[in-house]
Amino acid sequence: MTAPITRPLVEFAATARVDEPDALHAGRRAVLGALSLAAGASTHSAVTAAVGAFRGLAPTPAATVMGSGDRLGMAWAAAVNGIGAHIEDFDDTTLPSVIHPGAPIVPAALAVAEHVAASGREFLEAVTVGIEVAIRLAESVAPGHIERGWHVTGTMGPIGAAIAAGRLLGLDADELEAAFAIAAAQAAGLQEAFGTMTKSLHPGRAAANGVEAALLAHAGLTAPRDAFECDGGFADAMAPSLDPGRALDGLGETWSIVRNAFKPYSCGIVAHPAIDAAIAFRKLAGAEEVAAIDLRVHPLVLVAMGKEDPTTGLDAKFSVFHAVAVGLLHGAAAPIHFTDAMATDPAVRRLRQKVRARVDQSVGLDEVYASLMTAAGVRDDYHVAHATGSADRPMTDEQLRAKANLVAAPVLGDQGVQLLCDAVFEVDSLRSIRELVRAGVAVRPR
Amino acid sequence: MTAPITRPLVEFAATARVDEPDALHAGRRAVLGALSLAAGASTHSAVTAAVGAFRGLAPTPAATVMGSGDRLGMAWAAAVNGIGAHIEDFDDTTLPSVIHPGAPIVPAALAVAEHVAASGREFLEAVTVGIEVAIRLAESVAPGHIERGWHVTGTMGPIGAAIAAGRLLGLDADELEAAFAIAAAQAAGLQEAFGTMTKSLHPGRAAANGVEAALLAHAGLTAPRDAFECDGGFADAMAPSLDPGRALDGLGETWSIVRNAFKPYSCGIVAHPAIDAAIAFRKLAGAEEVAAIDLRVHPLVLVAMGKEDPTTGLDAKFSVFHAVAVGLLHGAAAPIHFTDAMATDPAVRRLRQKVRARVDQSVGLDEVYASLMTAAGVRDDYHVAHATGSADRPMTDEQLRAKANLVAAPVLGDQGVQLLCDAVFEVDSLRSIRELVRAGVAVRPR
Repeated sequence: MTAPITRPLVEFAATARVDEPDALHAGRRAVLGALSLAAGASTHSAVTAAVGAFRGLAPTPAATVMGSGDRLGMAWAAAVNGIGAHIEDFDDTTLPSVIHPGAPIVPAALAVAEHVAASGREFLEAVTVGIEVAIRLAESVAPGHIERGWHVTGTMGPIGAAIAAGRLLGLDADELEAAFAIAAAQAAGLQEAFGTMTKSLHPGRAAANGVEAALLAHAGLTAPRDAFECDGGFADAMAPSLDPGRALDGLGETWSIVRNAFKPYSCGIVAHPAIDAAIAFRKLAGAEEVAAIDLRVHPLVLVAMGKEDPTTGLDAKFSVFHAVAVGLLHGAAAPIHFTDAMATDPAVRRLRQKVRARVDQSVGLDEVYASLMTAAGVRDDYHVAHATGSADRPMTDEQLRAKANLVAAPVLGDQGVQLLCDAVFEVDSLRSIRELVRAGVAVRPR
Repeated sequence: MTAPITRPLVEFAATARVDEPDALHAGRRAVLGALSLAAGASTHSAVTAAVGAFRGLAPTPAATVMGSGDRLGMAWAAAVNGIGAHIEDFDDTTLPSVIHPGAPIVPAALAVAEHVAASGREFLEAVTVGIEVAIRLAESVAPGHIERGWHVTGTMGPIGAAIAAGRLLGLDADELEAAFAIAAAQAAGLQEAFGTMTKSLHPGRAAANGVEAALLAHAGLTAPRDAFECDGGFADAMAPSLDPGRALDGLGETWSIVRNAFKPYSCGIVAHPAIDAAIAFRKLAGAEEVAAIDLRVHPLVLVAMGKEDPTTGLDAKFSVFHAVAVGLLHGAAAPIHFTDAMATDPAVRRLRQKVRARVDQSVGLDEVYASLMTAAGVRDDYHVAHATGSADRPMTDEQLRAKANLVAAPVLGDQGVQLLCDAVFEVDSLRSIRELVRAGVAVRPR
């Protein structure tokens, strides 16, 4: 970090008395300039296009926030669902770019589909194509784009969201190219926000910007062509290198979206094999019978997940010891298992003190060798060759249903989650996506 | 440009039939993942903060679009006014970063001030401080940030807009630092959009994002600290170098906003001295009496403004010959003088054929030596040492009033523009900014 800049500026801005007459008069002049231009431009086609597009975003018609059923303008509903889908860092991931495509793109498609009452199949195709495009773009600039500090979900998300929203609005290729460029003009999101709620605003705004870009393009806002690759364009500004083949090879024949993966546990992915083992051990011993659990792990596990006695929920997400303890105690490692209360829970703390980890260069990143010793002196060895959710052992649909229950049952109830799962896996048969939207909203007690 | 990427992807997205079952099922899984997470997160404080903030953006309370009086949600009204303030490339400019601070920051402040019924003085201080911060930030990363392809009005605009909006919402320094970071997380806008309406979306979205960032910070969305300068942060990702002194030196003592300049003519700035001369010549000769106009100009004039016989309005903006002709014929060089019709107007074409320009290395960029020869054989020489609007001869308040009339009278009428000018120059005395808003809206014929 260089010398402080942000803080002195915001302190100045928050507290400065402004009594320098020249500065204030320069302010008046800026006001007059901007307002007279804006007034004069009110009949310009760019302005009338924007008014038309933004009218479409206003609350009538509104779209629905999952869970609560709150209704907001389309873009805001998309934004809130995008924030919600990402806030626990528990959403889908496509390697090697580490993009999380669902959080920005699904909510954008859902808001537009709800508005136009698209069929389930139309919605599904829009999501699939939007995700496909976003993954391909992300891979064409990875890893340099990410190394430069960009959060790829924030930068490629708006484009994928615009593609999905645009398809649902029936844009032709020219309009879709404009929507792409308008979304690219709003692509943002920096890794500096990691660890704060602003990280989730990245997919949130990406979803909203995608909706907005599609509406603006449809309303006639003109935009550059070849926005991604043109000289001085998106890739030039935001990435040190660009591999067009990664974006285009096999387009329409091979689908990158099938590599999109789902986390079974809401903590660092390198601890997942050990959690698999801990859950398997539940059949052998209750927590009170455990004398010790020994792990042989990939070296990165202790680098990324080596906190031995975490005291907060956030810290606990970086402790393989905590993760194994909750896996054995609770049979899961979900957001509720990484809270401050859980980090300081006596039973969890007792158990995680019995977990030891030893680094072994020959162990894979998605692999673990685990041994359980009981107080009675029984020893059991367990080998996880590929962790649940890894490329070689993707989550099954049943596991995804269980995960959906884990995250959504506290709001929707078990039966509500089942309705949601059924609506999604049978989405092709829905005449209107609004049926799926209803399944995603909690039935309020009367 | 590398091989095409954007076009093949949008053609695929617009037209592809999606019938690959694995891809579609991957789509369903992504949908379930995102929607179940979003439903489950509906009680998360990030989500409730966003819902609260976005509710504040919904049309009640609404804010006003200048000119038309359209009422949209606060963020959208700010966006539309930002687009309108920039669409003719006729707005204020601060060198050397070439930021246009008024278009993003004034509309953001206006929308929030209208909402909270701020006093005129509160509004003015917010604008002044927001612009001051944006100019300083822009200069701290210029010129490398701009050379990389960023449109600095799009990237610094959201931060300045968030500062202005945040002050009006009464944020303290901590909240304002969060608003700064949330705006920085949405900072975007590439020069590739120049020549399209999307360029004006940059200040438009900057204004909206600034409003939104202030509301989100106020609602409790957490955000990174030191967002501009931290390791791996904004400046690291978006600029090759950062000079903190340019951001901070003399903060609160010397005001960068006083260097904010205004264009008298809506075309390339290097032609402005010649237009000054052409307007001065109107006292000497009508267009029909002109035999020839000779110019001695800085070399850049013919590089940037050398089109001899433009056929479209956009081309005409890059023709010093056209600019001089309309200056002499119409006494102005406003947007209405750079239309397709004006570019092909016979009187304009006849006159611009009589204009000749000769390069002279010794002539300054804001300087011209001009000679008028009449058909009757009279010759008049005129030297413009510093063009109107240049640093050494800033536009006077009276000239700004005349410019406001030029751009806004077609919508507001002469009397309406006068009301707007009076409201702005006496803004400190307004008990509520809504009085100024009313002055910026056309009185509709009954």
